[in-house]
Amino acid sequence: MATTGFQIPVLAVVGPGLIGGSVAAALKQAGCVQRVLGVSRQASTLAQALQLGLIDEAVDLETAAQQADVIVLATPVGATRALLEQIKPHLRPDTLITDVGSTKVDVVQTALEVLGDQAAQFVPGHPIAGAEKAGPEAAFAELYRKRVVILTPHKENTAAAKNQIIRLWEQCGARVLLMSADEHDRVLASISHVPHFLSAVFMWQVASAADADVRLHVAGSGFRDFTRIAAGSPEVWRDIFLSNRAAVLAELKQVREAFEQAEMALLESDGSALYEFLEKAALARRLWASRSGLE
Amino acid sequence: MATTGFQIPVLAVVGPGLIGGSVAAALKQAGCVQRVLGVSRQASTLAQALQLGLIDEAVDLETAAQQADVIVLATPVGATRALLEQIKPHLRPDTLITDVGSTKVDVVQTALEVLGDQAAQFVPGHPIAGAEKAGPEAAFAELYRKRVVILTPHKENTAAAKNQIIRLWEQCGARVLLMSADEHDRVLASISHVPHFLSAVFMWQVASAADADVRLHVAGSGFRDFTRIAAGSPEVWRDIFLSNRAAVLAELKQVREAFEQAEMALLESDGSALYEFLEKAALARRLWASRSGLE
Repeated sequence: MATTGFQIPVLAVVGPGLIGGSVAAALKQAGCVQRVLGVSRQASTLAQALQLGLIDEAVDLETAAQQADVIVLATPVGATRALLEQIKPHLRPDTLITDVGSTKVDVVQTALEVLGDQAAQFVPGHPIAGAEKAGPEAAFAELYRKRVVILTPHKENTAAAKNQIIRLWEQCGARVLLMSADEHDRVLASISHVPHFLSAVFMWQVASAADADVRLHVAGSGFRDFTRIAAGSPEVWRDIFLSNRAAVLAELKQVREAFEQAEMALLESDGSALYEFLEKAALARRLWASRSGLE
Repeated sequence: MATTGFQIPVLAVVGPGLIGGSVAAALKQAGCVQRVLGVSRQASTLAQALQLGLIDEAVDLETAAQQADVIVLATPVGATRALLEQIKPHLRPDTLITDVGSTKVDVVQTALEVLGDQAAQFVPGHPIAGAEKAGPEAAFAELYRKRVVILTPHKENTAAAKNQIIRLWEQCGARVLLMSADEHDRVLASISHVPHFLSAVFMWQVASAADADVRLHVAGSGFRDFTRIAAGSPEVWRDIFLSNRAAVLAELKQVREAFEQAEMALLESDGSALYEFLEKAALARRLWASRSGLE
């Protein structure tokens, strides 16, 4: 690939698993990085990332903070505060930090608190991409191609810092959207956290039924698709729900109202109300599929 | 494939689309049918089914009733009564009828009412299989392989009649389960109708939001899987909900209780309750995936 002039001499990836490892792989493939440092508490993650060529060297967080031009925090949201506290004393004034956390209001607040007068160096982000599997072995350079990455710059960020992180993601093939951390958390509550909540509620209810075995034996491909997200890590999702609590609760209230409205149509055997409700949902889903290119 | 002694000299498929056409294709491949008649109100369906070799001749319903040894009704549930009324005057005493309807209590009641002293010839069924696409061109002989087909025989059915329809589906590669129509409708309310309801409620709510465009622009693969079923035909699903109204409403009540319990855990920031809830859902989903072979 032709060079575009965008260069990160030393990139550090904290957590070189699926998400972080794919950033490293994409930037290497685009010819934008000269050297990638990997940081992880898990020796096996580092060994795999090294063997797969995702990172060039395994280092500790202090070394990464001292040497890197850009640090990508690709760890669960709950780890952000501790990582920033360890990075802060060693952080050069020209190093940028970005993250991939699923919620942003709390991450921005944490960064402002912990980094203080160096908070301008932290540009918060969230790539909307994932895969069934986790770990360095699941990482691949194309993970972010044509996928949305949301950046939620805060008031301290300079235009230059924002542009660097925008270009980083564009080099990974992503479509970058800018919005406020508030708006991000509201939008994600709707299109990511609520579906997980509903899928888990449903799965919990089926598994709790006296005849759960018969039900699960009969379940087919619609059930499979609808419940796939419910298999996600309980730790990760508990943290997401707690850190985006207010936005999720506000959204759930709207969903419960829609639920009760549709339930009422069925209770009253109101065929035309049911039809209108189902038709609006079906048309919106079909339109989305044709526009998103995701199906 | 070696002959098994199971033979249907003349099979009639009413509605030779994805579901009905795949039955014809599977039985032809298994060498169990000598001649397949196709019936449809849509000339294009018949032309395609003929061209694809799913059926050997396009006939009207009266001819099918007079000539067929087995008639498969592969039409939406709402059409069952009218079809049986047209078939009844021409039905030979040795012809068996089965169907593929998504609800069974109403179908059994309709068959008993319309067929009267010939109701013993109707063995109700429901294959739990489908695909993204519809129509004869989507049909294929392997659709039912290793998939569950539920039969809900009623009190008039003879052992011989039940066995014939069981063998028909086994020749298609399916695993046949027998249960009462009541139990079928309760189980399907849970693992098929409720997921559709929740997926449609969610899709409706997102599409109704003031910032729906932003939300839908950001939606990713989890959203895609969770909402896939919401794209289904509003006509078909309105009929399913109305015909299985009582069972769906009973199940929705349970789901709403689970919803409110999880919502309360979040409202109270009760991390351990949230974790337990998410963990039970995740473990149940992972166990199902490993057992079902569906993922």
